[in-house]
Amino acid sequence: MDTQFFTDPRLAELHGAASATAKSLFSDRDLSVPMTRAELLSAYRSLASTGYLGGVIDRSRGGAGLSFEEYGAVLEGVSEIAPFLSNHSVQRSLVVAGTEQQRDRWLGPLLSAETIGAVLITEPHGGTHVADVRTTLTPDGDDYRLTGQKIWCVHTMTADVGVVLAAGPDGSAVRCLADLNHETVRRQQIDMTGLRYLTFGLIEFRDTPVAAGDLLIGQGTDEVKRTLAVARALVAVQAASVGQRAVYAAVKHLSTRNARGRAVTGLDLIRERVGELSSRVEASRAFAYHALKAIDRDDASAPALASAAKANATDAAVAAATAGIELCAAEGLVAGAEIQRHRDDAAMLAIADGTPIVNHTLWGKYVIEQSLLRRP
Amino acid sequence: MDTQFFTDPRLAELHGAASATAKSLFSDRDLSVPMTRAELLSAYRSLASTGYLGGVIDRSRGGAGLSFEEYGAVLEGVSEIAPFLSNHSVQRSLVVAGTEQQRDRWLGPLLSAETIGAVLITEPHGGTHVADVRTTLTPDGDDYRLTGQKIWCVHTMTADVGVVLAAGPDGSAVRCLADLNHETVRRQQIDMTGLRYLTFGLIEFRDTPVAAGDLLIGQGTDEVKRTLAVARALVAVQAASVGQRAVYAAVKHLSTRNARGRAVTGLDLIRERVGELSSRVEASRAFAYHALKAIDRDDASAPALASAAKANATDAAVAAATAGIELCAAEGLVAGAEIQRHRDDAAMLAIADGTPIVNHTLWGKYVIEQSLLRRP
Amino acid sequence: MDTQFFTDPRLAELHGAASATAKSLFSDRDLSVPMTRAELLSAYRSLASTGYLGGVIDRSRGGAGLSFEEYGAVLEGVSEIAPFLSNHSVQRSLVVAGTEQQRDRWLGPLLSAETIGAVLITEPHGGTHVADVRTTLTPDGDDYRLTGQKIWCVHTMTADVGVVLAAGPDGSAVRCLADLNHETVRRQQIDMTGLRYLTFGLIEFRDTPVAAGDLLIGQGTDEVKRTLAVARALVAVQAASVGQRAVYAAVKHLSTRNARGRAVTGLDLIRERVGELSSRVEASRAFAYHALKAIDRDDASAPALASAAKANATDAAVAAATAGIELCAAEGLVAGAEIQRHRDDAAMLAIADGTPIVNHTLWGKYVIEQSLLRRP
Amino acid sequence: MDTQFFTDPRLAELHGAASATAKSLFSDRDLSVPMTRAELLSAYRSLASTGYLGGVIDRSRGGAGLSFEEYGAVLEGVSEIAPFLSNHSVQRSLVVAGTEQQRDRWLGPLLSAETIGAVLITEPHGGTHVADVRTTLTPDGDDYRLTGQKIWCVHTMTADVGVVLAAGPDGSAVRCLADLNHETVRRQQIDMTGLRYLTFGLIEFRDTPVAAGDLLIGQGTDEVKRTLAVARALVAVQAASVGQRAVYAAVKHLSTRNARGRAVTGLDLIRERVGELSSRVEASRAFAYHALKAIDRDDASAPALASAAKANATDAAVAAATAGIELCAAEGLVAGAEIQRHRDDAAMLAIADGTPIVNHTLWGKYVIEQSLLRRP
Ligand SMILES: Cc1cc2nc3c(=O)[nH]c(=O)nc-3n(C[C@H](O)[C@H](O)[C@H](O)COP(=O)(O)OP(=O)(O)OC[C@H]3O[C@@H](n4cnc5c(N)ncnc54)[C@H](O)[C@@H]3O)c2cc1C
Ligand SMILES: Cc1cc2nc3c(=O)[nH]c(=O)nc-3n(C[C@H](O)[C@H](O)[C@H](O)COP(=O)(O)OP(=O)(O)OC[C@H]3O[C@@H](n4cnc5c(N)ncnc54)[C@H](O)[C@@H]3O)c2cc1C
Ligand SMILES: Cc1cc2nc3c(=O)[nH]c(=O)nc-3n(C[C@H](O)[C@H](O)[C@H](O)COP(=O)(O)OP(=O)(O)OC[C@H]3O[C@@H](n4cnc5c(N)ncnc54)[C@H](O)[C@@H]3O)c2cc1C
Ligand SMILES: Cc1cc2nc3c(=O)[nH]c(=O)nc-3n(C[C@H](O)[C@H](O)[C@H](O)COP(=O)(O)OP(=O)(O)OC[C@H]3O[C@@H](n4cnc5c(N)ncnc54)[C@H](O)[C@@H]3O)c2cc1C
Repeated sequence: MDTQFFTDPRLAELHGAASATAKSLFSDRDLSVPMTRAELLSAYRSLASTGYLGGVIDRSRGGAGLSFEEYGAVLEGVSEIAPFLSNHSVQRSLVVAGTEQQRDRWLGPLLSAETIGAVLITEPHGGTHVADVRTTLTPDGDDYRLTGQKIWCVHTMTADVGVVLAAGPDGSAVRCLADLNHETVRRQQIDMTGLRYLTFGLIEFRDTPVAAGDLLIGQGTDEVKRTLAVARALVAVQAASVGQRAVYAAVKHLSTRNARGRAVTGLDLIRERVGELSSRVEASRAFAYHALKAIDRDDASAPALASAAKANATDAAVAAATAGIELCAAEGLVAGAEIQRHRDDAAMLAIADGTPIVNHTLWGKYVIEQSLLRRP
Repeated sequence: MDTQFFTDPRLAELHGAASATAKSLFSDRDLSVPMTRAELLSAYRSLASTGYLGGVIDRSRGGAGLSFEEYGAVLEGVSEIAPFLSNHSVQRSLVVAGTEQQRDRWLGPLLSAETIGAVLITEPHGGTHVADVRTTLTPDGDDYRLTGQKIWCVHTMTADVGVVLAAGPDGSAVRCLADLNHETVRRQQIDMTGLRYLTFGLIEFRDTPVAAGDLLIGQGTDEVKRTLAVARALVAVQAASVGQRAVYAAVKHLSTRNARGRAVTGLDLIRERVGELSSRVEASRAFAYHALKAIDRDDASAPALASAAKANATDAAVAAATAGIELCAAEGLVAGAEIQRHRDDAAMLAIADGTPIVNHTLWGKYVIEQSLLRRP
Repeated sequence: MDTQFFTDPRLAELHGAASATAKSLFSDRDLSVPMTRAELLSAYRSLASTGYLGGVIDRSRGGAGLSFEEYGAVLEGVSEIAPFLSNHSVQRSLVVAGTEQQRDRWLGPLLSAETIGAVLITEPHGGTHVADVRTTLTPDGDDYRLTGQKIWCVHTMTADVGVVLAAGPDGSAVRCLADLNHETVRRQQIDMTGLRYLTFGLIEFRDTPVAAGDLLIGQGTDEVKRTLAVARALVAVQAASVGQRAVYAAVKHLSTRNARGRAVTGLDLIRERVGELSSRVEASRAFAYHALKAIDRDDASAPALASAAKANATDAAVAAATAGIELCAAEGLVAGAEIQRHRDDAAMLAIADGTPIVNHTLWGKYVIEQSLLRRP
Repeated sequence: MDTQFFTDPRLAELHGAASATAKSLFSDRDLSVPMTRAELLSAYRSLASTGYLGGVIDRSRGGAGLSFEEYGAVLEGVSEIAPFLSNHSVQRSLVVAGTEQQRDRWLGPLLSAETIGAVLITEPHGGTHVADVRTTLTPDGDDYRLTGQKIWCVHTMTADVGVVLAAGPDGSAVRCLADLNHETVRRQQIDMTGLRYLTFGLIEFRDTPVAAGDLLIGQGTDEVKRTLAVARALVAVQAASVGQRAVYAAVKHLSTRNARGRAVTGLDLIRERVGELSSRVEASRAFAYHALKAIDRDDASAPALASAAKANATDAAVAAATAGIELCAAEGLVAGAEIQRHRDDAAMLAIADGTPIVNHTLWGKYVIEQSLLRRP
């Protein structure tokens, strides 16, 4: 069913290669245990040929030159085994908002899987309200010092470099690169329920030095929106993949259960429910690619559409996995049952890059504006 | 928002032309009153240039030679004003299952809007269980006589020719063409809540003569599945369009209401709800086109996918319109409020070509089979 | 199933008598046509012996001296045929907030069904935001003049006297009694989709005289909350009744349909869905009586609980009826099918006395406050 | 909010005492670790004075002589800390279906917390289809031998005696008492996600001796239905309690989060959602007591009603906890967050004594039968 999804054979191929590589890579790995930095880098290297690392970054810069739609197909392939593994956001931030020196310094190691990057935005006092950033970047001679706490960031324990959002000397938001291995940086892992092969936690900067040249060049609001749109649309694709795994896991178990002298998968009631859950997941997948295509052609609707696609996909995936667990009855509740992993991964994706409430609200705002424009 | 939907400019163009023609055509028409045969034919003629009549039928046969995806875009355009207006199924049945003579006789008049066709399958005793067909086709010399009742068919009062499902002399299902203007045919209109510009009702055959040459050549099961798939995927596109109208109608009203000193469309609670409803509708739209593309490339998954797309789209449209009415509060309950029409049209589309329960079950069955194949 | 609901035989008896009277009263009446004033008064008189008019008002004042729970049972009985028929709010407002003269003047005629009262709060510019009242009561000698518009009020065309919310001379909200038959009052009926035996519409006051003695004595906030609580809990009971009728109507139709050689009501898929819809309705009914009991014992939680009960009951009833229509397939869409009436009545009840959004928010606010109190 | 729930002060008192005892009992206990047999018995002893052990069993037999409604209040109290702790079903089975000797032998130790009982019905090959029991009871002289596997039973590792469903010598279902400490019985713990202070797992009988006197006297179908009804209605009460805890846990966390300069609990969007989730839970609680009252008065609807109440309550609790986790955003996903425990407990209760699908179907079947009886 998977590769049939794509009309375009190139997308099918990208998806298939990524999925096959990921499968062979992780077949023996217990994905409930966090990967070390070395393991992650080795996985990245194995996946490099699929475009997983290079992604949408220009070939001239060492990237894979994929379109966003193509990159979505790659991520979806890997996501069948290990959603959210990549650190594509850091690379893209450098390309979009970095200086030439910053790119020279970091892009190579990131794209060749020698370095891991992380994006550090959320703070302990409240993640959604980004305007209220309390980490400060204060002048220290020609350079700066970074002080504050960041939380929930992917690759908290394994990343080497962070793109950090902070309040600059004049109070306005700035972004800078910070060396996470510096002695002034403390990291504390927080165990999460999902995406357990990755690390999350608290990162504290205590007067961490930041060179003047490590400030990212200010992005315009549109660029920030676009960056977020990309992140969200790519979460959407991965969430759809998780939702699909959840449906498969439920079906797999149910095919072994009997009622009224037949496998319960032969009962219309079970089929109807499976169909309903799955159709929402599949619709969310089509919608996710629709959003990626809008990003590819730089449509004005893309940021809002990506919000809609993301919230829709995680809603569908969480619903499919939650209902799937219930369908599996007692077996679904055995500690460690596969389908629980899908639910927990889906729940994680639902929060990353903004909660469903936040993303639905953003889309609703856009729909309202557009429909009022259209019908005066 | 509409035409932005399409990546492909050709689809945008087809959609735009169809929508514009439909708008100008029906701007003065009270769509709560059934159209007469003459009005319908005149509307078809006006729409002919958009491909609405010719659709996917080969240019060599007088059709418009569109792909299913393209035809979906045309239908969606018309659907913004008047969903389900067309009678494309009859034309396609002739092409797929008719004899050369039948095509010679009927295709021209149908494609040039001189004749209206109807598909007559459902019987009063139960519509879903098609196997239990009670209308009979009995031999009468070299020809046949048709006896029985059909119900709920689009164009009940206006159609000239019907493609009728009946039990043949040996009890097996056959399809034949019947002259609905024959004196032995009685038709009785039944008022429905939605799609009120169309006619529905009961059609009774009392020994209606059917010539030997009016039997359709037996379709294989695959062809029947494909025909149904087309019908369902096209309903899906139209339902998405109805759902979108419902969202717009709600927003339009809500933008005029105030609470806490501002328009309620400025409240996050309202935005979030609008966003959630709309994202489901938009996902169902992307999914509908996804199904049409699968039909275009004759994918084995297409029939099941079309069932999924249809049930998903009508679920989303009914939910959006029902919640939309509630959002509009008292104004939404005034008799004749626009948004009610969308809800009633969506509810009609949900039943046409199989109920949501039936279509979800078909998709669920397919998903179960596929996922068991994939994971032995 | 109905009367079995009550543990207390007295409640069962009250419910049974009300239901039987209502049934005999309306058996021949087409409830899709508004009742005239004379018809309404005659119906009230027939129902008087059930406590329908006297309700919770003290026997000493000519009331029936029922508890709120008992009165709920009476309303539920009548509601099986004609929900929302009564005008109990006006009587109760007089008792709670009227002067002795006002009670002497109006209570008798209202309780003996010679007069019909209406409550006039909502204005055309926005119903929820009650603080923004634009109807004004301006001094005119010792008396007052009333100017402004009210909308959506039950009994718009048939009421004799209105309890009107207006902005008083100093801008603060006041309530007064107004003679709706006065020549300065214009009423215009607005056709609604549900509760069609009642009248709704626009009422305009153009310098309507109001005597100084016709001002209600200011209610404290607690009393207003209590009045609203009563209204909401009683809507909840009636909505549960409507939801139950919707389930019955769907089942009745489905028992006549066949699939796979048996009535579809014998299929597990249909049973499960009916069970799920019905269980929500029945839970909402139990919750509605729970709220009434809280009002009876004057519990501090009663106002919030009534909001919760109301929103829960109308959510359940709208869901049951909407899904019920879909379950009935084409028959559910025939204009005038019984189950549509239940959906339309349920949708009306959902808006009366505050929308679901508003009532859920009120309950949520209370739950939040309480749970923070409990867990410091 | 809790004790306010009860109108009847006696119920409030029973609930309050049980809740207080449970709180003091478990305040230091890590409830994610299974309790040993000794710990369980000690807890039972501490709870004995609340009626938790004696329950509905007659005082003459050493029980607490509570009504089912009263017992529900006790269970709900304990459930605030540790749902599903009790082993009341074994006691009740002995009273309803045991012989006098069996009662003499077992009731005392069970009621004085010297012995733990378990109910062993479900088998590994499929739990819902009870008719297909494969554990056999074969004659061995005057006595019997028990062979087969049971799974998922509460108290798997801690119980001393089991009420075991088996196929008797003539193939019909029988129930017998079995000594679970016998050397022929193997037990293997299976870690479950919820109710982690209890033990579940596989129990294997390999020719376990069963004395002739250990067979329970055959229950009539009505008695079995009644026993199941009791079990289900009591699960419903406990599920409502779990749902309520989930709401509280979410609110507690949300009150510490900020957005737009205020606690997010002050935002209407959050309030509305909390209100909606909580109103479903509270309605399900009222419905659960409604079912218990029907059992108390031996109403014919009680078994079906208990199914409805159970499915409704676990639906509401699972929905509240799942949405609650999402509302808590990243904090809700930290491994070990309180609200996850409520979700996992709710999911367990949803499966115990029949899945939601099964219980909704049973209620739907009853509603259909009743409504057809009522409306010929
Ligand atoms: C898997 C995962 C990966 C992540 N990766 C990163 C990363 O790499 N880097 C990084 O910086 N962060 C990361 N995050 C953090 C993530 O961005 C935040 O968790 C998220 O934005 C929500 O913030 P919060 O958890 O603080 O929730 P809060 O902001 O505390 O929100 C609490 C609740 O309030 C609601 N709410 C908030 N504002 C409003 C409003 N205005 N109106 C209505 N409701 C509102 C929310 O929907 C939520 O229900 C990650 C999180 C997860 C789970
Ligand atoms: C807008 C519209 C256009 C239509 N156009 C045409 C047309 O052009 N030509 C034509 O012939 N017909 C047409 N129909 C009829 C349509 O095909 C049928 O209404 C539809 O197939 C359902 O049949 P029914 O209404 O008889 O429902 P029933 O078959 O009576 O179904 C009753 C209920 O039982 C359920 N059910 C049925 N079988 C099962 C099962 N096996 N398992 C579980 N549940 C089941 C259904 O989902 C439904 O809820 C149209 C209908 C509509 C509303
Ligand atoms: C059957 C029926 C009987 C009625 N009877 C009477 C009567 O007897 N007397 C009388 O005076 N009126 C009566 N009404 C009117 C009724 O009180 C109002 O319709 C109702 O309060 C909603 O007001 P509105 O329709 O103006 O909606 P609006 O206030 O315009 O609301 C529009 C939308 O905004 C939402 N909204 C509003 N405020 C907020 C907010 N702060 N946050 C988030 N969302 C918000 C609402 O939920 C709704 O979705 C009746 C209405 C009905 C349908
Ligand atoms: C917390 C907990 C406590 C328990 N306590 C006990 C105990 O003390 N003693 C004991 O013996 N057992 C106990 N059980 C087992 C419990 O009774 C079973 O798990 C339950 O009945 C479901 O059986 P199953 O898990 O085998 O699911 P299955 O029977 O395998 O069901 C699989 C799926 O098929 C569906 N299904 C089954 N039949 C049909 C049908 N006819 N139509 C449609 N769908 C159907 C189910 O809804 C489910 O989704 C407990 C379970 C739990 C979780």
